Amino acid sequence: MKILPKLERKLRRLRKKVTRTSLVRKLDLVHESARKKAFQESCETYKNQIKTEYELRNKVPKLSKSNKEAFISDGSFHQAVGRVLLVAEFFAMMPVKGVTGKHPSNLSFSWRNIRTCFCVVFIASSVVNFGLSLFKVLNNPISFNSIKPIIFRGSVLLVLIVALKLARQWPQLMMFWHTVEKDLPQYKTQLGKWKMGHTISMVMLVGMMLSFAEHILSMISAINYASFCNRTADPIQNYFLRTNDEIFFVASYSTPLALWGKFQNVYSTFIWNYMDMFVMIVSIGLASKFRQLNDDLRNFKGLNMSPTYWSERRIQYRNICILCDKMDDAISLITMVSFSNNLYFICVQLLRSLNTMPSVAHAVYFYFSLIFLIGRTLAVSLYSASVHDESRLTLRYLRCVPKESWCPEVKRFTEEVISDQVALSGMKFFHLTRKLVLSVAGTIVTYELVLIQFHEDNDLWDCDQSYYS
Amino acid sequence: MKILPKLERKLRRLRKKVTRTSLVRKLDLVHESARKKAFQESCETYKNQIKTEYELRNKVPKLSKSNKEAFISDGSFHQAVGRVLLVAEFFAMMPVKGVTGKHPSNLSFSWRNIRTCFCVVFIASSVVNFGLSLFKVLNNPISFNSIKPIIFRGSVLLVLIVALKLARQWPQLMMFWHTVEKDLPQYKTQLGKWKMGHTISMVMLVGMMLSFAEHILSMISAINYASFCNRTADPIQNYFLRTNDEIFFVASYSTPLALWGKFQNVYSTFIWNYMDMFVMIVSIGLASKFRQLNDDLRNFKGLNMSPTYWSERRIQYRNICILCDKMDDAISLITMVSFSNNLYFICVQLLRSLNTMPSVAHAVYFYFSLIFLIGRTLAVSLYSASVHDESRLTLRYLRCVPKESWCPEVKRFTEEVISDQVALSGMKFFHLTRKLVLSVAGTIVTYELVLIQFHEDNDLWDCDQSYYS
Amino acid sequence: MKILPKLERKLRRLRKKVTRTSLVRKLDLVHESARKKAFQESCETYKNQIKTEYELRNKVPKLSKSNKEAFISDGSFHQAVGRVLLVAEFFAMMPVKGVTGKHPSNLSFSWRNIRTCFCVVFIASSVVNFGLSLFKVLNNPISFNSIKPIIFRGSVLLVLIVALKLARQWPQLMMFWHTVEKDLPQYKTQLGKWKMGHTISMVMLVGMMLSFAEHILSMISAINYASFCNRTADPIQNYFLRTNDEIFFVASYSTPLALWGKFQNVYSTFIWNYMDMFVMIVSIGLASKFRQLNDDLRNFKGLNMSPTYWSERRIQYRNICILCDKMDDAISLITMVSFSNNLYFICVQLLRSLNTMPSVAHAVYFYFSLIFLIGRTLAVSLYSASVHDESRLTLRYLRCVPKESWCPEVKRFTEEVISDQVALSGMKFFHLTRKLVLSVAGTIVTYELVLIQFHEDNDLWDCDQSYYS
Amino acid sequence: MKILPKLERKLRRLRKKVTRTSLVRKLDLVHESARKKAFQESCETYKNQIKTEYELRNKVPKLSKSNKEAFISDGSFHQAVGRVLLVAEFFAMMPVKGVTGKHPSNLSFSWRNIRTCFCVVFIASSVVNFGLSLFKVLNNPISFNSIKPIIFRGSVLLVLIVALKLARQWPQLMMFWHTVEKDLPQYKTQLGKWKMGHTISMVMLVGMMLSFAEHILSMISAINYASFCNRTADPIQNYFLRTNDEIFFVASYSTPLALWGKFQNVYSTFIWNYMDMFVMIVSIGLASKFRQLNDDLRNFKGLNMSPTYWSERRIQYRNICILCDKMDDAISLITMVSFSNNLYFICVQLLRSLNTMPSVAHAVYFYFSLIFLIGRTLAVSLYSASVHDESRLTLRYLRCVPKESWCPEVKRFTEEVISDQVALSGMKFFHLTRKLVLSVAGTIVTYELVLIQFHEDNDLWDCDQSYYS
Repeated sequence: MKILPKLERKLRRLRKKVTRTSLVRKLDLVHESARKKAFQESCETYKNQIKTEYELRNKVPKLSKSNKEAFISDGSFHQAVGRVLLVAEFFAMMPVKGVTGKHPSNLSFSWRNIRTCFCVVFIASSVVNFGLSLFKVLNNPISFNSIKPIIFRGSVLLVLIVALKLARQWPQLMMFWHTVEKDLPQYKTQLGKWKMGHTISMVMLVGMMLSFAEHILSMISAINYASFCNRTADPIQNYFLRTNDEIFFVASYSTPLALWGKFQNVYSTFIWNYMDMFVMIVSIGLASKFRQLNDDLRNFKGLNMSPTYWSERRIQYRNICILCDKMDDAISLITMVSFSNNLYFICVQLLRSLNTMPSVAHAVYFYFSLIFLIGRTLAVSLYSASVHDESRLTLRYLRCVPKESWCPEVKRFTEEVISDQVALSGMKFFHLTRKLVLSVAGTIVTYELVLIQFHEDNDLWDCDQSYYS
Repeated sequence: MKILPKLERKLRRLRKKVTRTSLVRKLDLVHESARKKAFQESCETYKNQIKTEYELRNKVPKLSKSNKEAFISDGSFHQAVGRVLLVAEFFAMMPVKGVTGKHPSNLSFSWRNIRTCFCVVFIASSVVNFGLSLFKVLNNPISFNSIKPIIFRGSVLLVLIVALKLARQWPQLMMFWHTVEKDLPQYKTQLGKWKMGHTISMVMLVGMMLSFAEHILSMISAINYASFCNRTADPIQNYFLRTNDEIFFVASYSTPLALWGKFQNVYSTFIWNYMDMFVMIVSIGLASKFRQLNDDLRNFKGLNMSPTYWSERRIQYRNICILCDKMDDAISLITMVSFSNNLYFICVQLLRSLNTMPSVAHAVYFYFSLIFLIGRTLAVSLYSASVHDESRLTLRYLRCVPKESWCPEVKRFTEEVISDQVALSGMKFFHLTRKLVLSVAGTIVTYELVLIQFHEDNDLWDCDQSYYS
Repeated sequence: MKILPKLERKLRRLRKKVTRTSLVRKLDLVHESARKKAFQESCETYKNQIKTEYELRNKVPKLSKSNKEAFISDGSFHQAVGRVLLVAEFFAMMPVKGVTGKHPSNLSFSWRNIRTCFCVVFIASSVVNFGLSLFKVLNNPISFNSIKPIIFRGSVLLVLIVALKLARQWPQLMMFWHTVEKDLPQYKTQLGKWKMGHTISMVMLVGMMLSFAEHILSMISAINYASFCNRTADPIQNYFLRTNDEIFFVASYSTPLALWGKFQNVYSTFIWNYMDMFVMIVSIGLASKFRQLNDDLRNFKGLNMSPTYWSERRIQYRNICILCDKMDDAISLITMVSFSNNLYFICVQLLRSLNTMPSVAHAVYFYFSLIFLIGRTLAVSLYSASVHDESRLTLRYLRCVPKESWCPEVKRFTEEVISDQVALSGMKFFHLTRKLVLSVAGTIVTYELVLIQFHEDNDLWDCDQSYYS
Repeated sequence: MKILPKLERKLRRLRKKVTRTSLVRKLDLVHESARKKAFQESCETYKNQIKTEYELRNKVPKLSKSNKEAFISDGSFHQAVGRVLLVAEFFAMMPVKGVTGKHPSNLSFSWRNIRTCFCVVFIASSVVNFGLSLFKVLNNPISFNSIKPIIFRGSVLLVLIVALKLARQWPQLMMFWHTVEKDLPQYKTQLGKWKMGHTISMVMLVGMMLSFAEHILSMISAINYASFCNRTADPIQNYFLRTNDEIFFVASYSTPLALWGKFQNVYSTFIWNYMDMFVMIVSIGLASKFRQLNDDLRNFKGLNMSPTYWSERRIQYRNICILCDKMDDAISLITMVSFSNNLYFICVQLLRSLNTMPSVAHAVYFYFSLIFLIGRTLAVSLYSASVHDESRLTLRYLRCVPKESWCPEVKRFTEEVISDQVALSGMKFFHLTRKLVLSVAGTIVTYELVLIQFHEDNDLWDCDQSYYS
């Protein structure tokens, strides 16, 4: 289950090996032997050595030109998340101006901006769509299964509104993030800077592609189904009548309405996937900041460092904690919606898995979608738990501080790391740690066992029954 | 879910902006720049500056006469809670004399007081009513649903007795509260003092109005129902026969009995709502005391303060903790009854929501009542969790103490904040924190899923069936 | 629920008021005013004053001769528990010699002692009885309900064996207890010394009487039942055939066998009740030792005490913790059996409460037994949780140590109190705290809700069905 | 439940008594009295005494030649685990060279080694077998019960792959373990060194024998069953047709296939048992390292030791923690598979226990297998929890450090022990502590209660039904 973050790490290591010049390798050897010597030597002599080493290192990046993208990146979260937000803007979320700009000070939010208007219009359109769904559901017998469209559209609507609110805070948040980042110990190599951005891009890319694949499969299975239950002669009309039954429950068929419905569906599906990915991306960003600090601590692990060093690191750690807190306040509603949504949908889909699948297209779509859902939930859980894990990792280096340099500052730092619970949360009702994964899994199994008792095999070929893409 | 406390905070900020004179704003700027300078300057110079600032500030309140009520308030819990207790006294609870007095030393409890007598008489009357309910329930088959009247009247009775006991302790409690309050760092503006009282009034007002609305709706639906199931020709008699079936199960109809039953019903409903509101109000009071301390700490955040300053704050924090403990001892039985009641009633009502509603009046009443119940439970949970949240917030300011002024007193303060669990509790069996909300929600879902299996659709138009307003 | 320990406290206070001579009252006043002065005065002057006070106090006990028993008691656990163990010995448990002796050094265990022989013989007899029960149960269809006799006799057997093992350790345990007790700050009044022993006696007395009452009721209901289902002409034979059906399942009726069965039943019932009471009594003993320490700390709360004072208290606290640990190791299997037994029996009895009672005698017996069971479980839980509660209370006094006398020893003491989990446990699988009560209650409700689904109304007048007293 | 580790301890003590020469006993007395004196004496004098004692002790082992094996052992984990790994290698797991070598530096892993090839071939063979099982299961209706073969073969396959990966890390792990071990305070007697190895051997031996007995019983019951449902005339063929139904579901009967199936079955069964034993053995190793440290601390309990002593112990403790962490990273997937497997199989077997057993052979096999399963699960849980328990035990000795030698190093050591959670884990999703046992038991009971509702009595004499050995 730790596979996702592990795979990345391996990729990174592979690349590291390839990129590292022989000069760096030699430096590492020097560093390594120095580390061993340090236990006998006094602290002062070693410091001078480190300074020289630093100066040498600062010359290194100019040599490693293997990767163009790596060269451009300055390792900031603002830059890494730029393209992700651009995609979101295209899908009517997060209407902030200047997301691809070099500096977070270029970010701005305005109600009169074209993106904001698009976003507001789409929210209005979603409200109408949600209303239609609600109307249809309330006019049919309600069950655990039948409220799926309301849960789906309702949470999409909620996320849209939260995202709009978040967009207004985004410029300030990014400025704060920038301040914290600037203050952190910098990576000496381009590779270090490039890592976070790369992970974020990969997560976004893989997530989008899988989500796209799922949508295509859903369309195929819907077309398959619609052609079987011929309501009209027109196959396209049949398809739209099926997939937007909440619209044609109140209105008669018309092409503009059908297109609007399709548009709504595509956008909703994207936003529904995007909220999970957004939580993942913010988690990757926060975890990577803790890792940046930990990497620095690892470099000086077991050495006699001055109290000033520890004081600086403590304040940097504190800053990341505050950053974590601010981000959590800003996105915790999204996190909450994302988790409860996944919990509900996994329960529903697992329950549906007891049905006999009417066709191969259905079966392929259904199992792909179920595995994608579980995988996505697991990925969100593990990535967001990694913030907590990384924040606790600092303790490992603090435990190795030698007796001689154990000072009040290290003590204070240690106590702060021990007593603080640094983690993303769902409205502070639950904290995202690895233990949560187990309790969520346990909850799903328990609910599932109880729900199975109410399950009756629905005949999916029953054409009167509502079908939801 | 954090909406309730958030809304308030927003309102407060809005008002702050309006009220603040330009003089205050300038002072803020001075303060802000001073804060930045302080990192370079020595502690002593800055202290003098703060003194001058203090003197200036003390002149300010005389200028802000925008709000009359704000001017009167001295920010004490005794004053803020006065009218709330007056209402309670009208409903035969908490018979303490002098609740609207200026000073808590005027409070007194006496067994010979008219309020106490009224209270005792009402308790006796409630015992009789409870006995009648018990008799009726035991003479019918018992189910999860049918014991509702006993749970309702039993818990009202329990709360009445606890409130009487609490009334005897109230004068001492308020005196202790007064001592703690006097010692706390005072708000410099009338607005700061006015906040807590205002929040308490608003909670009381909204709670009372919703409770009143619910009762009206319940009456309409009962009248509707009674007129359908004509037992006698008199519609009023029908109504009373329905809503007080536990009385007319043993006695034949008579107007005085009917009026007594109605009186009992109205009072019980109020007390049932009041217990939740009382827990909320005490929580608001305690949380606001922690906030008062935190506001002072925020003003000096990151500055070099003397050990005496921290020692004072630590003792003040300790005092609020002791206050919290005393209040918890006094009201924890009410808290316990309130929580278990809400848990039970939500389960019952959710189960009833599966019934088909016989009329629009019923449906409106039922859903209004269900939403009110859930909302009230959430409000109690969140307001009471805010005591814990505010008490932990102190840590945030202690984390920012600069290295230079890190002294044993700050260390001790920090350790005490970390290791103490400051929260209201239900008889110490559970502590009221935000995590509790999730576990309560989980419990409700689990029980509901199991209970659904025993559910049979009750025909509410079945006139023989007991109907409970 | 906190009522049990509270009632005692009240009684104690009442007695205190009555017993206290006017001299003591004056001393209290002196002490009180001195406490307030101490914040201004230097530590040394006050110490002298305390010394004088001590000398005065040491003269006091000679004056209060109001209670003869109080005069005799030396406040040791060995003395307090003596009569309790004597009763146990009569019922073939804990065969230790010298339990009523003045000093724990008189305690001894020997395999050749008459008590030990009786105990071993009874264990052998119980094994046979258990075997018969097992044989009968395995020859009938097994259900959650039908295994009750095995659970009952099996746990009684287990407790008997553990008690025999405990008896061998008892002399050493009591010696260690004596060492810890001698070292603790002594109560100055006979009343203080008398309290623990009195509580233990009362718990034993009330427990025994209720258990006796339950057994009488069980006999009445069994006689009632046996006379209805006449198997033979002899009513006494009928009764024995019913209550010892596991014996007469394999053997034909004979008076000696019937008497042996009756004897087994009476003894088993006592032992089954005794294990709960034993856990309670040990808990009372341990909690009272913590209280003794806390009472001393309260006397000097907020005063400037020397580091030596704190060092002594810390070591005393440590000693009680070690004592707690040793006792827990010795009795944790009994605790575990007691808790799981109560959990199982409450589930079974609650389930049986759904049956319609065949006669008034049955109903009275059944509800008395159910309430006794729940009350006893609650009492065990709360008394054993009080050990944990008292051990945490020490923190309250440590929080009030003034700044001036805050020294490394106080710090160490505080940290030890915070980080240690002092509580009785069930084989370390769970710790007995107040939170456990809630989770046990939750578990019972959940299991009950699920078990109800398998419930079929058993006709208790069905004479073929096994009936278990 | 604590019986398993307790039994060992007793055995050890018994042996100790026998082996100990009178010289050692006298030394103990000297040591004991010295310990008491130490509170009055100065630290320096005592140290000299201890030195002399040390020198005396170092002469002791030469005298105790009672046990040959004890003489050989050097107390290293590498040596203790050698034969265990040899057995594993025979069953195609952990293909490391040099496991029985004297020094861990002789360990090596190579892809070209014969063991590795055998292992890879067996994995390939298992994949085929797993595929066949999967094919058979998917071609029948799926239920909680019917997926047992997939779960079984799937987890065996997973463990095989993890073990291969672990084999590659093993040389480095053992080298690290060796470094940590060398640095620890050494046992002065051969007996101390011999303990861990002996425990590991006994666990392995008992585990293997029980597993072998279970397999024999399973064969007998399968032969019994096969002879009843005669498919063909050949009884051996019948047996193989039964036990390898997943093979003969796709292929017709042939002797090589049957032998391959049998081979697969025997090996899978062994590996399935081995994974639990492996977790136990690693736990015993880690716990014994903590015990080694604790034994040293106990020797100097309550004495005035120098800060250097504490600093050394702290670093040793830290090293074992790091070792624990590394081992956990390496085997946590095996732990996870082992626990979830046991959880699933206990649920399935308990559910099957409701079936009526068709023959005595079946009943004996079934109950033996169920008890073995529960016992094994309990043993894994308790042995792995002992790592956590031993790591917390250190605290006990730190609490007894006298006031005079309380120094920053002891403080730091104490804080580290308190705040670190040292325990094996299942992928960090859960930590293996004693509390886990209770929650696992609770989960099993809950699931069981729910699952019973779906249970239908399967007729095991139904010859068409799949039977799984």
